[in-house]
Amino acid sequence: MCPDSVEPSRAEARRAQILAAAGDCFRKHGFHGASIAQISKTAGMSPGHIYHYFENKEAIISAIVARDLERFLTLTAEIRSACNVREAMLARVAEGIDECLDQATAGLKLEIVAEASRNPHVAEIVHEADRLCRESFALTMRDMRRASGHQDDDQTIDAMVEVAIAMFEGLQIRTIRNPGLDRGLVSRLFQGALRDLFDQPA
Amino acid sequence: MCPDSVEPSRAEARRAQILAAAGDCFRKHGFHGASIAQISKTAGMSPGHIYHYFENKEAIISAIVARDLERFLTLTAEIRSACNVREAMLARVAEGIDECLDQATAGLKLEIVAEASRNPHVAEIVHEADRLCRESFALTMRDMRRASGHQDDDQTIDAMVEVAIAMFEGLQIRTIRNPGLDRGLVSRLFQGALRDLFDQPA
Repeated sequence: MCPDSVEPSRAEARRAQILAAAGDCFRKHGFHGASIAQISKTAGMSPGHIYHYFENKEAIISAIVARDLERFLTLTAEIRSACNVREAMLARVAEGIDECLDQATAGLKLEIVAEASRNPHVAEIVHEADRLCRESFALTMRDMRRASGHQDDDQTIDAMVEVAIAMFEGLQIRTIRNPGLDRGLVSRLFQGALRDLFDQPA
Repeated sequence: MCPDSVEPSRAEARRAQILAAAGDCFRKHGFHGASIAQISKTAGMSPGHIYHYFENKEAIISAIVARDLERFLTLTAEIRSACNVREAMLARVAEGIDECLDQATAGLKLEIVAEASRNPHVAEIVHEADRLCRESFALTMRDMRRASGHQDDDQTIDAMVEVAIAMFEGLQIRTIRNPGLDRGLVSRLFQGALRDLFDQPA
């Protein structure tokens, strides 16, 4: 069957299947070590199928980054629509910590950021996604701070967002460097530290 | 001249020169993309000289990690020997932030941790260095907390160390994902957040 004839929802499922396989390959062999042949084998599809959906490995990275961004934007929009934004935000923190501490997720994210540090195309993809992610987090942070009676300027909100994201992303490094870390206790202390950041005086 | 005849201090300087060149190559081309030929060209030495000092690329990574660990252990020992450990610690935080935000340093550290997430030999090197680094930081954290009148159990100290390191290491990711971040403001907020972590109730 020609890939062109695949119906939209099935095409979506195939794209997702390719992204999952590619994510695995990038994590295990690195962006450069992973080949389209490996990805197609892992996905159980022909290389021709892969090329039908994605022009090259950078297009796959771009789609992985877009998928993760989409999830983050949905999450922050949900938090902003809650009655109590601060409680909604804090309620999702433990989940965010667990996700950052997941070794497979962390390994892939670190490979993408390491690649962004030397590959201008991947850097561009990552910078743009990060900008949209910060923008959405900043809206959420502003809502939360206003509800707690704080008035901050844009620069302060942006810097709070930076520090909060640094804390989460740092966990991705920790789970690789110290796989045996005490997840329960680290999560508890991390949440306290994040709460202090959220509640700091303006 | 045969490398064996090189006097110790000159051998030290050559090793340092190789590590700097290899760090550059790993960062720019990735651990797998970088070759001994490239490293020798960057260092201005023959490949034979490189092999005299290091058996292979993993031995070079191991020496880079050991060099960075050595610096960290010296720093924490200095802090512990200060009259006021808390002040000495806080006085060095801005410097630590700047170092984490340095893009070349961050790029190399991220490449090493990405490699550790898939290469068992590199993982072993990184885990052992991280263990020694945490151990030394935990001693320092304990001294600081005791001086402020807090009595914490070992698990709590270890988790505080984890969260503090996560914050610093997260900055390495931030400087790649958002090279335009407001360094001054982020550093100020980061220091406040770290102080809150250090001063939290036991």
